[in-house]
Amino acid sequence: MPTFAADHLADWSRRLLQGLGVPAEEAQVVAEVLVEANLVGHDSHGVLRLPQYADYLRHGHIRPGAPFEIVRETPASAVVDGHMNFGHVTMTRATGIAVAKARGAGVAAVLVRGCHHIGRLGTYVSRAARQGLAAWLAVNSPGGRCVAPWGGIDRRMGTNPIAFAVPTRTDPLVLDMTTSVAAEGKVRVLHQQGRPAPPDWLLDHSGQPTTRTADFYADPPGALRPLGGSVGYKGFGLSVMLDLLCGALSGQGALRPDLTPGHNGVSLVVWDIRAFVPMEFFFEQVDQLSEWIKSSRPVPDGGEILLPGEIEMRTAATRRQKGIPIPEGTWTLLSALSRDVGIELPAESEEK
Amino acid sequence: MPTFAADHLADWSRRLLQGLGVPAEEAQVVAEVLVEANLVGHDSHGVLRLPQYADYLRHGHIRPGAPFEIVRETPASAVVDGHMNFGHVTMTRATGIAVAKARGAGVAAVLVRGCHHIGRLGTYVSRAARQGLAAWLAVNSPGGRCVAPWGGIDRRMGTNPIAFAVPTRTDPLVLDMTTSVAAEGKVRVLHQQGRPAPPDWLLDHSGQPTTRTADFYADPPGALRPLGGSVGYKGFGLSVMLDLLCGALSGQGALRPDLTPGHNGVSLVVWDIRAFVPMEFFFEQVDQLSEWIKSSRPVPDGGEILLPGEIEMRTAATRRQKGIPIPEGTWTLLSALSRDVGIELPAESEEK
Repeated sequence: MPTFAADHLADWSRRLLQGLGVPAEEAQVVAEVLVEANLVGHDSHGVLRLPQYADYLRHGHIRPGAPFEIVRETPASAVVDGHMNFGHVTMTRATGIAVAKARGAGVAAVLVRGCHHIGRLGTYVSRAARQGLAAWLAVNSPGGRCVAPWGGIDRRMGTNPIAFAVPTRTDPLVLDMTTSVAAEGKVRVLHQQGRPAPPDWLLDHSGQPTTRTADFYADPPGALRPLGGSVGYKGFGLSVMLDLLCGALSGQGALRPDLTPGHNGVSLVVWDIRAFVPMEFFFEQVDQLSEWIKSSRPVPDGGEILLPGEIEMRTAATRRQKGIPIPEGTWTLLSALSRDVGIELPAESEEK
Repeated sequence: MPTFAADHLADWSRRLLQGLGVPAEEAQVVAEVLVEANLVGHDSHGVLRLPQYADYLRHGHIRPGAPFEIVRETPASAVVDGHMNFGHVTMTRATGIAVAKARGAGVAAVLVRGCHHIGRLGTYVSRAARQGLAAWLAVNSPGGRCVAPWGGIDRRMGTNPIAFAVPTRTDPLVLDMTTSVAAEGKVRVLHQQGRPAPPDWLLDHSGQPTTRTADFYADPPGALRPLGGSVGYKGFGLSVMLDLLCGALSGQGALRPDLTPGHNGVSLVVWDIRAFVPMEFFFEQVDQLSEWIKSSRPVPDGGEILLPGEIEMRTAATRRQKGIPIPEGTWTLLSALSRDVGIELPAESEEK
């Protein structure tokens, strides 16, 4: 399949976005976030999104160049409004503010409203972690709902994701997960492949557990289940709390079915580790805990114990060396968009 | 079964703790936290614990009267050392500091080391929520481990619980959950009742899923599984991140198998809602989201959709009216302890 060096793919993404009317600096930021998602293997949040973003731009849902407004702030906190610029742009700035505030105050909380799709959450918390801070990030999606509440069967909640990152001596540990049993995109992939879903993922419209992905996309539709299997009230509870800590606390709203696609409320907390313990102590603790966890016997089928974010770092190492593969179907769509906008395609990587 | 008014049970608990050498003020704090757990139905964290605490006191593991030391602080953050006083005492003070700092700074993070067993996490976040703040609390247990990592089969992680609370117009919404599929105490209850565990809870010592609770307590032992069923890497990831955000960031340690029982690292974040949005807006969002969630059809077997903490508030209403029932077996142990210490038993409630 077509394979590209990360730099080439990012450069092409930037040029494409500029061709769609995005200012150069903002196009650069979005391109970097997208290609970083591809690098770590989260292709669902990578350049695959560009045709969707082009569509949002055409409809005015994403507003490049929109101001980044600090609505309220203290030395340790801020409410910012992205005014529906790219979420990648808004969150890059918001993360920078949170890091700067935490360096002064020890901790900082930044709440974001008017924030379009931010891509991979892990990107922002990783950036804080690479600067020596621990970070927590959550997002609610007050419009897009596909998850049933615990005890219920109709779509009511978003997949409300949460991410954490902490620094280590090398790459950060990064957790980036939905509070539903899976992201909607994972069900879509299984559906397109004609494969069944695991038995604890889906309910059909009548509320019966199902492994048929078609039941999820039927009319009337089924629903994703909250994280937790037999104790799914935990995933549901997390989702409710994040909806309020993101949507209500940011001013974006916890429930806004009237909004155009992509509105998010975001909640970010960063801790400056040096305000709490010496950095070397923190690193020692990470090392000891990692070693202890990995000293467990693996599961009998020959599994491996991987820390959060470890598989992504391996994928990134491989893709930095061998390039980022883009499935033919995706590349056909991206090439067509590139031609429409009149932007030259990137050179394919020699190594395929 | 023996049933007591909450006030009587709290008064007796305080007198008992004083009889065990705990200063009056600290005994009062511990008694209140224990009886609140009973009131909301979390009996595993209630007065049931007193014989265990008496044992810890005798062995010097809990050190009543130990100083509450602020090791480092900024206007928005603090590291405190409880010096192994009762965790209830340490966390009551730590929560008060976090609330006061957040009132000034918008947000506050307090990290706690040298903290003994804190009881029900929900208590502390609820207190913040009743004062108009949102709160997040997590605890690691660097010594007591019973959960297998994802991909592994040996006990490596604690049940590392997490709690959230947000204010509403009435009682706070409160989520209080382990990042393992269940608390060890729930397995113990099933074991004592001779009932099987749900199929996604346990691994036996060879790493095979099992519903036999005896496999968990066997020698060599089995392990609890992380939260998440087919996606248990999410619960495992949460547990790893909380171990570091609590154990490493507090200075307590993320892995300390050498410690006496009960050492915890605690991480607390509180947001002063008024620093971000008007309180009335926040309440409206809670109301709208609650109404939307509850408008889902319930599961076919006649379930009910309950928000986080709702069942606890119902139990508290009932127990405030009818008293707190204590199982005969538990009361026999508590009565014996009371006689040993020479403390008069509380009057039983007329309504049983």
